[in-house]
Amino acid sequence: MDVRTYIERHRETFVAELKEWLAIPSVSSDPEHGGDVHASAEWLARHLEDVGFATVEIWQTGGLPAVFAEWPAADPDAPTVLVYGHHDVQPVDPVEEWETDPFVPVEQGERLTGRGSSDDKGQVLFHTLGVRACMAASERQRPPVTLKLLVEGEEEAGSPNLTGLLEERRDRLACDVVVVSDTTMWDADTPSMCVGLRGMTDCQIDVYGPEVDLHSGTFGGAVPNPARALAGVLAGMHDSDGRVAIPGFYDDVVEVSADERELLARLPFDEAEWLRTARSTAAAGEAGYGTLERVWVRPTAEINGMWSGHTGAGPRTIVPSSAHAKVSFRLVPDQEPARVQRRVRDYVESALPEGVRATVGFSGPGVRACSSDITSPAVRAAREAMSRAFDTEVLFTREGGSGPEAALAGILEAPLVFVAVGLDDDRIHAPNEKVEVPLLLKGAESVAYLWEDLAARSRAASMSNRLW
Amino acid sequence: MDVRTYIERHRETFVAELKEWLAIPSVSSDPEHGGDVHASAEWLARHLEDVGFATVEIWQTGGLPAVFAEWPAADPDAPTVLVYGHHDVQPVDPVEEWETDPFVPVEQGERLTGRGSSDDKGQVLFHTLGVRACMAASERQRPPVTLKLLVEGEEEAGSPNLTGLLEERRDRLACDVVVVSDTTMWDADTPSMCVGLRGMTDCQIDVYGPEVDLHSGTFGGAVPNPARALAGVLAGMHDSDGRVAIPGFYDDVVEVSADERELLARLPFDEAEWLRTARSTAAAGEAGYGTLERVWVRPTAEINGMWSGHTGAGPRTIVPSSAHAKVSFRLVPDQEPARVQRRVRDYVESALPEGVRATVGFSGPGVRACSSDITSPAVRAAREAMSRAFDTEVLFTREGGSGPEAALAGILEAPLVFVAVGLDDDRIHAPNEKVEVPLLLKGAESVAYLWEDLAARSRAASMSNRLW
Ligand SMILES: [Zn+2]
Ligand SMILES: [Zn+2]
Repeated sequence: MDVRTYIERHRETFVAELKEWLAIPSVSSDPEHGGDVHASAEWLARHLEDVGFATVEIWQTGGLPAVFAEWPAADPDAPTVLVYGHHDVQPVDPVEEWETDPFVPVEQGERLTGRGSSDDKGQVLFHTLGVRACMAASERQRPPVTLKLLVEGEEEAGSPNLTGLLEERRDRLACDVVVVSDTTMWDADTPSMCVGLRGMTDCQIDVYGPEVDLHSGTFGGAVPNPARALAGVLAGMHDSDGRVAIPGFYDDVVEVSADERELLARLPFDEAEWLRTARSTAAAGEAGYGTLERVWVRPTAEINGMWSGHTGAGPRTIVPSSAHAKVSFRLVPDQEPARVQRRVRDYVESALPEGVRATVGFSGPGVRACSSDITSPAVRAAREAMSRAFDTEVLFTREGGSGPEAALAGILEAPLVFVAVGLDDDRIHAPNEKVEVPLLLKGAESVAYLWEDLAARSRAASMSNRLW
Repeated sequence: MDVRTYIERHRETFVAELKEWLAIPSVSSDPEHGGDVHASAEWLARHLEDVGFATVEIWQTGGLPAVFAEWPAADPDAPTVLVYGHHDVQPVDPVEEWETDPFVPVEQGERLTGRGSSDDKGQVLFHTLGVRACMAASERQRPPVTLKLLVEGEEEAGSPNLTGLLEERRDRLACDVVVVSDTTMWDADTPSMCVGLRGMTDCQIDVYGPEVDLHSGTFGGAVPNPARALAGVLAGMHDSDGRVAIPGFYDDVVEVSADERELLARLPFDEAEWLRTARSTAAAGEAGYGTLERVWVRPTAEINGMWSGHTGAGPRTIVPSSAHAKVSFRLVPDQEPARVQRRVRDYVESALPEGVRATVGFSGPGVRACSSDITSPAVRAAREAMSRAFDTEVLFTREGGSGPEAALAGILEAPLVFVAVGLDDDRIHAPNEKVEVPLLLKGAESVAYLWEDLAARSRAASMSNRLW
């Protein structure tokens, strides 16, 4: 029985299993659901044992548990793949906007609605269908690659313990490639692979002038106004070309290759439609780049909030004593968050007038950007596997947001490959999250082909004495 | 009996009368005290009748009542003086910071504590002592000038009905000079006359970008950020010399005369002490002007408040959909508030990037600046009268704040002269407001001399056929 037939015949079982798992409200950011996150880990562990994984462990962390599983290949020289995903889900507020109970999954036609159906339980679960299909097609009892799974329970809470877990369990997690199944495709008709996520670091800038609010009649015009100083700092963060004007900000930025820019340009991007989604009347950004490049491959500085002085009704003629802003920076390879933080501090310091001081507080160490090398064998193999599953060419995308994936690549020293079938309209993080079941099946099919292909490439490479 | 002796002998009666009036809590901005403002008007009307004013009327307005009184000179060719003051007072919050009951006036040594003692009941009342002293010294039954009093009851509530009252009663209020007793002197040892107040107009700027807050990962860097647009608008309001960079802002500004600048420079101004009061580590403002000039004779643009997007704890990586600021402009002669408002609107419009729109809402028509011509006979006469009362030279000051005085000068078409004896440390508008009784007596003495002098100058001028 070939991979596709196996998968189609097991669709009902697959959906039934997924519905069982989706019924567990594993909301990681809500302490009241802590028990549910544990239950979710236990459900997954039992399922992985049923599927046949040789080793299944629940890894406790300082917070909520991750599930680790391993299924060694028969061939000791076969490559090792680590699949990363998460079994926790977003909160469901505002719950009154859900048309069905978020934790009573409902199948309507090809669509399965429920919290976590797309992000990320559905995409974790296609891996167990995929490995079974792979083995059934080859009539083997073990997968062609050594398959490891790391499914964490705190991704939607910012993965606070992931780095520690990776450091601590580095040996158990050792692998040749990391496959991440937690992103989206361009759309249902345009299968694509994500090849990068932006990093991020964010800060609060607090500017202080006179120690008390002053009457603007008595003092206005003769003392420094911290709101004006902050406006200067914020306005000076970009030049007239929309580039970030913080000195050194672009120093470590790696320009995206001409090949990748060309592939991005082939995506059927409709700017008018994008602007309707953004509910904006104009696109705006760094000169020399298109909208998709601006959100995917270019770093940014964005004011997220600001406040100072009188913000209530009516006038109040004061010189405020302080002014504040929240600013976040999206990063691209190879910007180091710590280095960007130093540059931001230096810039703010240099931009302040006399009589005004500022503190710049970053909310944490920040997250590095990550990307896949589109010329690497792993990315080529994944792209071919997806093309075969979808029966069409697969393009490349990126994501403008940020995730914990850079830590996986950095600590495990393995390349990242994103194989995922979520859609932008799956309403992840929003009411009425859904997934398209046929796409989950295509995900399973893709990884079934991918494991075989990676094993074959590895054998060929070893014959030619080159590590692939 | 000379003026000074008369006043010293009547000190006790004067203080007793003032205490009676101060006991009436005529807080105009608090509707619960509306009855008290009426009672205060009635107290003053009765007092003015007792003093001997020929006409005493309580003028109802759309809001709280003003008191008008008139005492014609014997000589029909004598000049007419209109004294302006107010009988309403500021609220007393925070009342727990008062050391004594704000409406139980307490005399300790030369100091009288109570709400309104300095602002403005004490300064209104020295006029009735002054006119009695003037007449007693000359042994006449009527004052040497036709004396009119307009004591409004809504000054601390922004004088919302003053302009209407002035327009409506223009004939009854007709005068040759307006004497305002509602300002301060440099300090107790440095008697001075205020010769100008700045005007004001203020607005809220609302900047709108995308119609909803957007995720900065998905959209950041590719849509206009209204907070950044607002920062640009605000930062661009000043140039690097600290001048307001709104095109045309200075068009109608009359430079203060070299003579007045020289006199201002003679004030014993201690910048270090001023900075301690401001609790600021540096002075800052328009290049080419000193601190006192910056707050008194130069116009300003000051950010009073601003807000946008996420202002709570922690990060929230959004592109906010709107950003807001409150900005006030202090004006000097001859800036027209309406014209400045147009310039501000034009500037904001011109400073916005594509995809962002703004509304600029002014809180009202604004207030013009006012000033006295220091070379005019009226100012000279007042300065000489105060010098005689204080036995020392009198310097000139200005005030950086704004009041309704410009309306008096504009509608009544008469020059303004400020004769006042309040001090900056009288704590007006704050807990424990007090007044120095000896200074109130000097105020009475000053106006007693002034009325005689104005009458004498008028007679001399009419003899030489020149209007003074
Ligand atoms: Zn996810
Ligand atoms: Zn006052």
